[in-house]
Amino acid sequence: MPEKEKKRYYFDWAASAPAEETASCIHYGNPSSQHSEGRKAKACLEQARQKCACVLQVKPETLFFTSGGTESNSIAFFLNLMRKGNGRIVSSSAEHASVREAMETLEKTGKPVGSVAVDSDGRVTADNLEKAFDKYGDVRFISVMAVNNETGSISDIASLADVIRKQKAPVHFHSDLVQAAGKIPLDISGWEIDSASISAHKIGGPRGIGLLYLRNPSLDVFFRGGGQENGIRGGTENVQGACAIADCLDKLGNLQTVKTNFDLALNRWKKLISSLTATNRCTLIPQQRAHDKELFSPYILQAAFNNIPGEVMARALDDLGFAVSTGSACSSNSPERPVLAAMGIPEKLRIEGIRISQGYSTTDEEIDLFLNAVAEVLKFL
Amino acid sequence: MPEKEKKRYYFDWAASAPAEETASCIHYGNPSSQHSEGRKAKACLEQARQKCACVLQVKPETLFFTSGGTESNSIAFFLNLMRKGNGRIVSSSAEHASVREAMETLEKTGKPVGSVAVDSDGRVTADNLEKAFDKYGDVRFISVMAVNNETGSISDIASLADVIRKQKAPVHFHSDLVQAAGKIPLDISGWEIDSASISAHKIGGPRGIGLLYLRNPSLDVFFRGGGQENGIRGGTENVQGACAIADCLDKLGNLQTVKTNFDLALNRWKKLISSLTATNRCTLIPQQRAHDKELFSPYILQAAFNNIPGEVMARALDDLGFAVSTGSACSSNSPERPVLAAMGIPEKLRIEGIRISQGYSTTDEEIDLFLNAVAEVLKFL
Repeated sequence: MPEKEKKRYYFDWAASAPAEETASCIHYGNPSSQHSEGRKAKACLEQARQKCACVLQVKPETLFFTSGGTESNSIAFFLNLMRKGNGRIVSSSAEHASVREAMETLEKTGKPVGSVAVDSDGRVTADNLEKAFDKYGDVRFISVMAVNNETGSISDIASLADVIRKQKAPVHFHSDLVQAAGKIPLDISGWEIDSASISAHKIGGPRGIGLLYLRNPSLDVFFRGGGQENGIRGGTENVQGACAIADCLDKLGNLQTVKTNFDLALNRWKKLISSLTATNRCTLIPQQRAHDKELFSPYILQAAFNNIPGEVMARALDDLGFAVSTGSACSSNSPERPVLAAMGIPEKLRIEGIRISQGYSTTDEEIDLFLNAVAEVLKFL
Repeated sequence: MPEKEKKRYYFDWAASAPAEETASCIHYGNPSSQHSEGRKAKACLEQARQKCACVLQVKPETLFFTSGGTESNSIAFFLNLMRKGNGRIVSSSAEHASVREAMETLEKTGKPVGSVAVDSDGRVTADNLEKAFDKYGDVRFISVMAVNNETGSISDIASLADVIRKQKAPVHFHSDLVQAAGKIPLDISGWEIDSASISAHKIGGPRGIGLLYLRNPSLDVFFRGGGQENGIRGGTENVQGACAIADCLDKLGNLQTVKTNFDLALNRWKKLISSLTATNRCTLIPQQRAHDKELFSPYILQAAFNNIPGEVMARALDDLGFAVSTGSACSSNSPERPVLAAMGIPEKLRIEGIRISQGYSTTDEEIDLFLNAVAEVLKFL
């Protein structure tokens, strides 16, 4: 008789959410084809774009379907290869690996790059941003993620946009919204950002589909491919994926649902945080998070357990049926924890840090069970 | 009462095949995560890679999952941005739009580019390839597709590889196999090509997943993303897509199935070709195709009907329930037909050309019905 599969509890939503929306489109035609099958697929694709635009309150022609967050970020960053002049490309020091890699690629091509410091919360402040403008004097492109994928710290994109807009020269403002979409209220148009990235699989959709928002859709991209998506992103359009991400956003992305789920998630997180900090083994990263809840996403928590390396803690929890991660999945091969280092977190805590992340369907009961599992592990480690 | 949906007959498989394989993987973990969900997803991904490698008879570590043919082509072409030296990048004059665009992007970055002429069949011959080497003297990267997506002409990749390997300097040989995989016998290892592209949705798989073969997997790519796929292709791995393309290749890609389906497709195509040429209104493109069947893919046929613009013919057939295309879907916004122009096809025929393409499940009956539909259209146009 096969061994009964042990029940699992998933606390790594920030790496990838359980996929609930699947392809709801049956049209297999190529949207670039002129025949009936192609026209139906094209109609489906444009309906999906409309639906996304409606939820995100932007014009449909500013949204482009890509293969995911990494590609959306890279299309935005590589706009710099098409831009005249040699202005500097700057990102916060706590961005996702896909942004860090894009910066490195651009630096290799000879572009001047730079960095905006984050504060001890892992957040870019208006003050730090102004300092970066003063320091470099030639910034033309800046990237700041809305929600940090390791600590959950939320940057105030609106106030950063204000700083950017008062610069004399035009500056392209890119924001990675991968951990923000469906999690915190977004105001893409109001923030006046120039480009943004969203990924389906972080909000319950399938892999391989994402969105790029481009305020100015007539920008010239580095690589056009076959000219699809209005020349912004080549390759036969993934209509099924587009329908799935539209369904995800429709279900989870509207302002009211985001706020309702945020409050529910916050309540669960308050319980988690107060119980964890009540054990004298746990240090939140950053420590001040316990007193400053509104400025962090209630979907992500970074915490360290005294004298237990994060990897050991994650493995012990995994053995009990609980999935958590150390760092970002995309940097799992690197023990460096550059985001935590940028925040000034000491090495001991960086090594001990684990990331706990929940989703809209996480339950109070799962939080209780998770806390029990932590207590269980702490008895032995 | 809703009008009964008219039965449709699909003859545009070269644009996109009806999707039959869907995601068969239920593991939603991020393969880069260390927990049980992540490890299961990783195991699934590697099993899919093994399956593809087994069918394609290459080492699994030479295969990388991408978002499709366009991205696979672009990763291969952008290897040139990482290569030292200023050697020339050359492609045949009849490549897919994604390759043409990659060439244009590289040219814009200042790389020297060039072109290999195709013969009147749309095929690169060893002779033409040698001429290109003689003409330029500095070729370091060459791209020739195995099966032309507009005419079905098959280039003899083995003989081209021989020409390339006898050059004094090393030359990277890339081949776009998008219309070849599952359609003609492939010998990727034997041909000693350096890189190749395959797309799932041309062989019954979903959109948004493809394969890149890289003979030397330690090559340095232009953009690494989050470091996934051994640093060759960033972005959270599309495990579901990987399983689906593996299933497609497993079902359609093994040599015996390819040969069996090829023979069946050839029989259907012989009937189609002989009946079409029996009407005095039809000219095959190229005309000599009627007498030279083995050198063309029996899945694609380009044909012109005297005094009927291709667009009109395609629309008339569409109205009768038959999907065909003019040109490649990826170039459908361009009336230029650059591939046919490169073959020396006169403008009148280029304008009149339509592409008819079938798949492994096309039936003899569908061919009969298609021929009836053509006869019907020719009565009135």
